[in-house]
Amino acid sequence: MLIVQKYGGTSVGNLERIENVARRVARTRKEGNDLVVVVSAMSGETNKLIEYAHHFSKNPSRREMDILLSSGERVTAALLAIALQEMGIDAIALTGRQAGIVTDDTHTYARIEEIRTDAIRRRIAEGKVVIVAGFQGINEQGEVTTLGRGGSDLSAVALAGALEADACEIYSDVDGIYTTDPRIEPKARKLEYISYDEMLELSSLGAKVLQSRSVELAKKMGVKIIARSSFSDDPGTIISEEDERMEAVVVSGIALDKNQARVSLRDVVDRPGIAAEIFNKLAEAQINVDMIIQNASRDGTTNLGFTVPQSELERAKEAIAGFSGELGGADYDEEICKVSIVGVGMKSHSGIAAKAFSTLAENNINIEMISTSEIKISMVIDEKYGELAVRSLHEAYQLDK
Amino acid sequence: MLIVQKYGGTSVGNLERIENVARRVARTRKEGNDLVVVVSAMSGETNKLIEYAHHFSKNPSRREMDILLSSGERVTAALLAIALQEMGIDAIALTGRQAGIVTDDTHTYARIEEIRTDAIRRRIAEGKVVIVAGFQGINEQGEVTTLGRGGSDLSAVALAGALEADACEIYSDVDGIYTTDPRIEPKARKLEYISYDEMLELSSLGAKVLQSRSVELAKKMGVKIIARSSFSDDPGTIISEEDERMEAVVVSGIALDKNQARVSLRDVVDRPGIAAEIFNKLAEAQINVDMIIQNASRDGTTNLGFTVPQSELERAKEAIAGFSGELGGADYDEEICKVSIVGVGMKSHSGIAAKAFSTLAENNINIEMISTSEIKISMVIDEKYGELAVRSLHEAYQLDK
Repeated sequence: MLIVQKYGGTSVGNLERIENVARRVARTRKEGNDLVVVVSAMSGETNKLIEYAHHFSKNPSRREMDILLSSGERVTAALLAIALQEMGIDAIALTGRQAGIVTDDTHTYARIEEIRTDAIRRRIAEGKVVIVAGFQGINEQGEVTTLGRGGSDLSAVALAGALEADACEIYSDVDGIYTTDPRIEPKARKLEYISYDEMLELSSLGAKVLQSRSVELAKKMGVKIIARSSFSDDPGTIISEEDERMEAVVVSGIALDKNQARVSLRDVVDRPGIAAEIFNKLAEAQINVDMIIQNASRDGTTNLGFTVPQSELERAKEAIAGFSGELGGADYDEEICKVSIVGVGMKSHSGIAAKAFSTLAENNINIEMISTSEIKISMVIDEKYGELAVRSLHEAYQLDK
Repeated sequence: MLIVQKYGGTSVGNLERIENVARRVARTRKEGNDLVVVVSAMSGETNKLIEYAHHFSKNPSRREMDILLSSGERVTAALLAIALQEMGIDAIALTGRQAGIVTDDTHTYARIEEIRTDAIRRRIAEGKVVIVAGFQGINEQGEVTTLGRGGSDLSAVALAGALEADACEIYSDVDGIYTTDPRIEPKARKLEYISYDEMLELSSLGAKVLQSRSVELAKKMGVKIIARSSFSDDPGTIISEEDERMEAVVVSGIALDKNQARVSLRDVVDRPGIAAEIFNKLAEAQINVDMIIQNASRDGTTNLGFTVPQSELERAKEAIAGFSGELGGADYDEEICKVSIVGVGMKSHSGIAAKAFSTLAENNINIEMISTSEIKISMVIDEKYGELAVRSLHEAYQLDK
């Protein structure tokens, strides 16, 4: 088998942990697998370098930031290769450039355009374990680029796709994807499987483990991801295309997002294009609008509700001020949260939403907004009921079983 | 003018010092000069990375060491470019690869083979200050290489030579080359000029400022070096070909080396090739033999004396043990030191050596070994008289004037 493994910053956070990773890699190697290992910078290193740069400039040149930030992963890659060699494993460290990772020109947030796999394939054919500095590549002009936060996951998934690896194991300090946040519901259960789409909808549950961009890329390239912990032997959670096993499960997980704020526009003049104008204005101000609800028009006006991240609420207020002549008023509420129920099985099961609404009703939790997709039901409720809602729903759908 | 500046680890040792360097660079730029700036890693960084590697292996792969160690200079280069941009100076950071520094294959101690100056010349023509990560290059296969200790000086001198720069300013925390170590003789005077050859002979005086390899390269390429401090506005010491000004000076400086040990081989069988065999054996054991003295043969045997670094004395003893059948005995003495008087003016002046010998005699210092070259007189004496000898000779040649 050809396996791509990726170890995050916590997994390589100090020399002892790098040694631990080396032992894991050596074991996988000795089981007879070919191996490409992608590493992050040691935890804290990237933030330290960002702080250094911000000492000099609030808005440092992104080209120079990429030369700066790409150094951390190189250090880890070299150290891991040295540790493996000392264990008798033939290993070689490659920078992003040497690994053939070619990106576009968008410094600090580059997109991978191509992986030139010749160099890696040659090293694998020579019997070497290939260690790749994650998070980085070069553009067509040979300039160093980086892929943004979570970029090492992207490096790993892209390499696994280009090399047609059998699996891409993403190691962190969390041993997989849970039915909900175990800090809220101790009965939360680790999932054996989850589909790409569910994973994307559950991003708030999985964000610590795997970022959305990587899941999207894995879905596009058909890469099977295994989210595992480098601190245990737990088999982790497999993230792949949905199959029969998954569809038998109606609800996979419940996510809670407390960082949203609700915006309610009352009595908006109901003329064609008004909604487009409002949301274009918000987009121009780079505000990420999440749930959008519009009720049917009545008396020539309508109510429009949506949520935005709390940190963007002030900017949203400014954008909306420009429309004051065309609406009756605007209410803002930061004391809300969003509870989401996710599962591919919903597609073929009825009554899932009804059970959610009645569960919350039984707990006297009022639902302020509802939005549904094929595999998700999201509800906005009073922030203080967030944890209670998660626990009640977790029990209602028997997710601990 | 085109000026190459190089800032050592202490000069860029923390963020405030990098800012200080940026102000210096900005000033030189505003005086109308074109500028290429070579930087070292922040002081302590390279040693930290070496320690990291040695945590895993006593003898880490040199290829991987180069990926590891080259990261520190990249960080400094990026930070300095960011600091300059914030001051309104158009600056760009280049890695060793991007600066076109091509070396041989000797990882961790590579030799510069070629500088492909197109990229740097283009940036200079665009009006940019070019910041280059020192100490590193790539070999013909595109592998990262480093140049060994003092490698950033080499980068700077080689760039200055290839770009035909008007000067190569080497900044450290010392403001130039002194007639002797000011910690030994407070009257030591900073030299305005010194020749390459004198600098090479005085390496123990200048080692903190500039390593021999860089001086040799500067001599070969005809690069005028100016050794300066980044913490003062002192004009520093110019290191260049000897000229009239220098030749007027008989003695430029006095060096003291306390790290040598003396080896005396008594009654060595005087057959052809015996000396060659002994020194070949020492060379095989990678022992750096310094002074060698052989007296005329008498009664078919001869006495052979030489000095080696104290740290290599044990290995020297082992090497010599193999010749026990061919010599009367071997004496070893670590309690010695070497005092050297250096000056290009010696060539055309007589009586310099005589003055040295009589000065030491006046102080009742016995001379154990003497070795002379065209521009240097070295004497081995009892270690405890080292400082006294330096001060006496400094006064005898009126070096404080």
